[in-house]
Amino acid sequence: MRVCGWTASVAGMVACFALGWTLSGRSVQGGDEPGQPAVKGWTKGKGWGPWGAADEVGSLNAMTPETIKAALGLVKQGKVYDLGVPYDAESFRWPGHNPGVILTYRGPEGVRRQGDFPAAKDPKVNPDKVAWHSCALFLNDNVGTQIDSLGHITAGDDNQWYNGFKEADWGGNFGIRKCDATTIPPIITRGVLLDVAAMRKVDALPSHYRITVADLQACLQRQKTTLRPGDTVMIRTGVLRYWGKNGSDHDKIRQHDSAGIDLAAAKWLVEQKGAILIGSDTSGLEHAPAPKEPQTFIPVHRYLLVQQGVHIGEFHYLEDLARDGVSEFCYVCMTNKIRGTTAGFTLRPIALR
Amino acid sequence: MRVCGWTASVAGMVACFALGWTLSGRSVQGGDEPGQPAVKGWTKGKGWGPWGAADEVGSLNAMTPETIKAALGLVKQGKVYDLGVPYDAESFRWPGHNPGVILTYRGPEGVRRQGDFPAAKDPKVNPDKVAWHSCALFLNDNVGTQIDSLGHITAGDDNQWYNGFKEADWGGNFGIRKCDATTIPPIITRGVLLDVAAMRKVDALPSHYRITVADLQACLQRQKTTLRPGDTVMIRTGVLRYWGKNGSDHDKIRQHDSAGIDLAAAKWLVEQKGAILIGSDTSGLEHAPAPKEPQTFIPVHRYLLVQQGVHIGEFHYLEDLARDGVSEFCYVCMTNKIRGTTAGFTLRPIALR
Amino acid sequence: MRVCGWTASVAGMVACFALGWTLSGRSVQGGDEPGQPAVKGWTKGKGWGPWGAADEVGSLNAMTPETIKAALGLVKQGKVYDLGVPYDAESFRWPGHNPGVILTYRGPEGVRRQGDFPAAKDPKVNPDKVAWHSCALFLNDNVGTQIDSLGHITAGDDNQWYNGFKEADWGGNFGIRKCDATTIPPIITRGVLLDVAAMRKVDALPSHYRITVADLQACLQRQKTTLRPGDTVMIRTGVLRYWGKNGSDHDKIRQHDSAGIDLAAAKWLVEQKGAILIGSDTSGLEHAPAPKEPQTFIPVHRYLLVQQGVHIGEFHYLEDLARDGVSEFCYVCMTNKIRGTTAGFTLRPIALR
Amino acid sequence: MRVCGWTASVAGMVACFALGWTLSGRSVQGGDEPGQPAVKGWTKGKGWGPWGAADEVGSLNAMTPETIKAALGLVKQGKVYDLGVPYDAESFRWPGHNPGVILTYRGPEGVRRQGDFPAAKDPKVNPDKVAWHSCALFLNDNVGTQIDSLGHITAGDDNQWYNGFKEADWGGNFGIRKCDATTIPPIITRGVLLDVAAMRKVDALPSHYRITVADLQACLQRQKTTLRPGDTVMIRTGVLRYWGKNGSDHDKIRQHDSAGIDLAAAKWLVEQKGAILIGSDTSGLEHAPAPKEPQTFIPVHRYLLVQQGVHIGEFHYLEDLARDGVSEFCYVCMTNKIRGTTAGFTLRPIALR
Repeated sequence: MRVCGWTASVAGMVACFALGWTLSGRSVQGGDEPGQPAVKGWTKGKGWGPWGAADEVGSLNAMTPETIKAALGLVKQGKVYDLGVPYDAESFRWPGHNPGVILTYRGPEGVRRQGDFPAAKDPKVNPDKVAWHSCALFLNDNVGTQIDSLGHITAGDDNQWYNGFKEADWGGNFGIRKCDATTIPPIITRGVLLDVAAMRKVDALPSHYRITVADLQACLQRQKTTLRPGDTVMIRTGVLRYWGKNGSDHDKIRQHDSAGIDLAAAKWLVEQKGAILIGSDTSGLEHAPAPKEPQTFIPVHRYLLVQQGVHIGEFHYLEDLARDGVSEFCYVCMTNKIRGTTAGFTLRPIALR
Repeated sequence: MRVCGWTASVAGMVACFALGWTLSGRSVQGGDEPGQPAVKGWTKGKGWGPWGAADEVGSLNAMTPETIKAALGLVKQGKVYDLGVPYDAESFRWPGHNPGVILTYRGPEGVRRQGDFPAAKDPKVNPDKVAWHSCALFLNDNVGTQIDSLGHITAGDDNQWYNGFKEADWGGNFGIRKCDATTIPPIITRGVLLDVAAMRKVDALPSHYRITVADLQACLQRQKTTLRPGDTVMIRTGVLRYWGKNGSDHDKIRQHDSAGIDLAAAKWLVEQKGAILIGSDTSGLEHAPAPKEPQTFIPVHRYLLVQQGVHIGEFHYLEDLARDGVSEFCYVCMTNKIRGTTAGFTLRPIALR
Repeated sequence: MRVCGWTASVAGMVACFALGWTLSGRSVQGGDEPGQPAVKGWTKGKGWGPWGAADEVGSLNAMTPETIKAALGLVKQGKVYDLGVPYDAESFRWPGHNPGVILTYRGPEGVRRQGDFPAAKDPKVNPDKVAWHSCALFLNDNVGTQIDSLGHITAGDDNQWYNGFKEADWGGNFGIRKCDATTIPPIITRGVLLDVAAMRKVDALPSHYRITVADLQACLQRQKTTLRPGDTVMIRTGVLRYWGKNGSDHDKIRQHDSAGIDLAAAKWLVEQKGAILIGSDTSGLEHAPAPKEPQTFIPVHRYLLVQQGVHIGEFHYLEDLARDGVSEFCYVCMTNKIRGTTAGFTLRPIALR
Repeated sequence: MRVCGWTASVAGMVACFALGWTLSGRSVQGGDEPGQPAVKGWTKGKGWGPWGAADEVGSLNAMTPETIKAALGLVKQGKVYDLGVPYDAESFRWPGHNPGVILTYRGPEGVRRQGDFPAAKDPKVNPDKVAWHSCALFLNDNVGTQIDSLGHITAGDDNQWYNGFKEADWGGNFGIRKCDATTIPPIITRGVLLDVAAMRKVDALPSHYRITVADLQACLQRQKTTLRPGDTVMIRTGVLRYWGKNGSDHDKIRQHDSAGIDLAAAKWLVEQKGAILIGSDTSGLEHAPAPKEPQTFIPVHRYLLVQQGVHIGEFHYLEDLARDGVSEFCYVCMTNKIRGTTAGFTLRPIALR
């Protein structure tokens, strides 16, 4: 089975890249609007890459000082939108991920009672009775607001992920050893909100709603905005209006969480529009269950992460942007830096305008 | 015992604030250089606050759309410095925090062998044999690159933290219920690096080196830069040149990790210079062990977090900034959003220039 | 509030103990049948203790080489009944306890891929490719088959547990520091099964069934057995017929798990019959919810653990004993030896006959 | 590679078993002393098994009601020796196992402050202010006093463990799915202490001391005892005299922990003497590092667990037995019953005499 089309078609791509990315380090292909800047590594009709046999970064390689400056240049008001949802042990998560517990590890009473830190109890050293709190956390790395790493999804008999990294070579007991979350660079791009819930005039899309290319085009038209190669695209279903303080209403969230884009929409966003990162306010971006025709139960994840090297954003809180009618913003997100992890988790990305 | 000077001296401050912060929402006190903007909530000679009885945010309340725009305006090149250190089970941490383990929770082989997710094994549903990786994490919330929350440190018989929140009221089994890491807003400020190691002409400051006001003034002079109220100040000791890929050389890191500022330096940064956030490349910012005169073993932590509401940054990787001779930058950091946690951890703050 | 009647009434008890336990180390009080041996520390009509100000063991102090030999003397066939239920991440547990996860920590593929143990990969050192499995466990200490320690339950403003140990003195961040599970000695006693489900002619007692003294007396009569001071009493509701391989049918188990003894039955077992340990096949021994009259929601726990120093057995698998019509056996149980834990958990007690 | 000689040689063994185990359920082979009982499944010169293609129990299959009654018949005094060491976060463990943490999950103050269990705070429902302690545990399943399961060790390209179970078939993300600790039956056998430290007249054997067949024979002679087929053999090095309350003196324990038996001694115990279980007071039973000739770094583990189906006991506290000069006793051990685990851990086996 072929999991990574890019690797497989390297020979065939030499021609088209010969005048572009391969020689100059930049694609000669621009977006579909006049005046759009060419974006490194992206070819209209093809998508992203290849970036070389050692690459673990994927489409985020296309960020350059110029694109970062341009994205920051969108900030006119200095207004910050926090796109992260608060997470705790009660929060909704995909049931295939382990539960999470946040525990007081040390507290001031415990420190003094336990007596294992003598300075804390010594009235000469610590007359002001200073002590501390810390927590021990048992977590899954796919919870709360997330960015999936390119090693999250595998395919094929040899369990390959992005760029042909195989389980037998790069798996392990302590997480993945290629494309873990530490390889996700700080992300600063233009961001565009596509508010499908508003376009459909609903609070939140119904269960299993399949967001198509036509839906996305209708959003662009309604919002009078356009996509440009290199954009982060955030797709709003409205589900997170039910998150509340900690996402504890599992039934309500689960009901709406299955809305999402289909494979054709993902391909259109990447191959026609040059999306560098695609996210939504659901736990999995794609609609579920997947239709019969794809070759797997999570075709969008496989296409974006394994085949295109496009990271996926999940559980992004888009309600405030929607309320303010924001279509275009500067998206900034930095993931945790934990070796082996398969996603940035419990994140707090921001939208700046 | 008096833990929170601000609360205690509210009466006495009415006079000085009557013409300033209390009436206008902004301090009339500016920095010590002509032309510096006044900064909300800061009074020269006093420091930060008060921000009201319900406040959990402290000095970061002073960020406004204007200060954020000004900070982003410092970005001229679009160059990004990643200030986070990669963390794993081998990494150095303060021994009073629990060990961390990053474990493969699901992997493609395990998913198929375990058989608990039938779709993954079904050749009709999943002919392409798509599967996934995820990790289970057992962590402490004070590891890797951190921002201490205002609830990290307590003092006094009733274990008060910032703004008078008491253990008996706001403690709990699942972390703290006031001033947890979810209350730390996205941080975007002007940042200034004070490179004490370079000023002292050493690779890294020696063990227990006490950084004084004079050291900080010498850095400003050497670097030809100034501090302004509202700045994030990052103090470099050089210890993280020994972090490597995962901070596994505990002996070397421990040797240098005890260098840091003394209480007088912390006070000078806050009360004379208006620092909104103070960080360094060590695990604890302040020099250790503390001298005899303070009333506790961690006087800088107590002063900044409990008394001034100034968050502390730890284990910030400043080597690249130092190598490039960067003194001034735009500092951006967003912490995890986990309820109850006492710090943002394994962070990836950035410096933009 | 008075939590520990024994401590409070020491003065008044001096008289009755003066000729008995205090002087001789053994109670002069025997059971209610002629010829029953006197049992150390038990007084008919009163129950167990006191055992001294430092005691953490409670009624299990009454075990002596003689009682142990007598209990082992009940074994005639050499037949072993395993009273433990298999536990995993799917198993039913009281929802107030944290979830459990059993994870492969090391496996042979992971050891070789990870490469952190060079000998495992070295064909000269390890030509036979030997490797290992181990697991990391995240567990609660009140799951599976359990014996509650005497520190599990507290009462009163000062949170006292057995023998007057107080939270302010003996609590801590790392579990309890008095009466933890390490203080539970190996338990070897006569055991008696009281099969209430069989007596009521049901597969399992219905929800909230309140087992009374009359029920227990009816069991004794039906089974033609008697209780003797120093016995372990196991009360069968039948709920564990629904445990299956791992207790994953939460709805079914929860439905029946609320049957149990009331406070009067607990008192009768201890004060009239001299039970040294009382257990059942449910998660909590006592019926739930408790009736209005007691002073708390778990009066049996409080009475047995705090006031009488009688350990509680939970989730003991009694189905095989019931099937074979066993009333009397030798009960043997050794708990885990983990400092700070509040119960022996995931145990495998045995009944020998 | 051939990992399981027994499976391979089934054909050749049919003859010798035809008159013995296969037909009668008992081996006709007895021990080497006149009058010794024949033991099921053991052949002098060969060792244990085979027990059938589905077997997960190994040599412990040889326990029968008769052997259990005989073992219990050794108890003359009713004296109990606790062979478990107390374990906590500070305790020595093999560094290849994950660290352990014991944390207060709920405590009475936290339950009330957290407010998530309303009955606990309600003065009408709970006037006596009853609350509870429980702990959350993060542990490895190979710590404290242990019994290794037959799935702990693997060998060969296909990572087989006992009885030919292969990783590709019976591995998984949640521990092993054949021969986990739930398959270890309650163990009740005759036990014999071989006190090598006393024989060598040392407090504890020196580092890397290799215990040979001659050493074991010298112990038998000195102690005037014999081994019989079906015995549990416990070999004392003396290391646990340094365990103290929690095994926190890692340097001292590590220094002595490398003493142990060599492969020839293990073979002699199994093939000539019929040991059903072999244990010691060290973390790994065998001496380390292994000599050059074996085909792996842990030849005794591989031989006993994979090839012979003989469980291994580790960190058994033998000091009290040694002090009392006990050579023969009844050994009783029941492991935790957690599905997937590779060992019984933090156990409290007992010796009865």
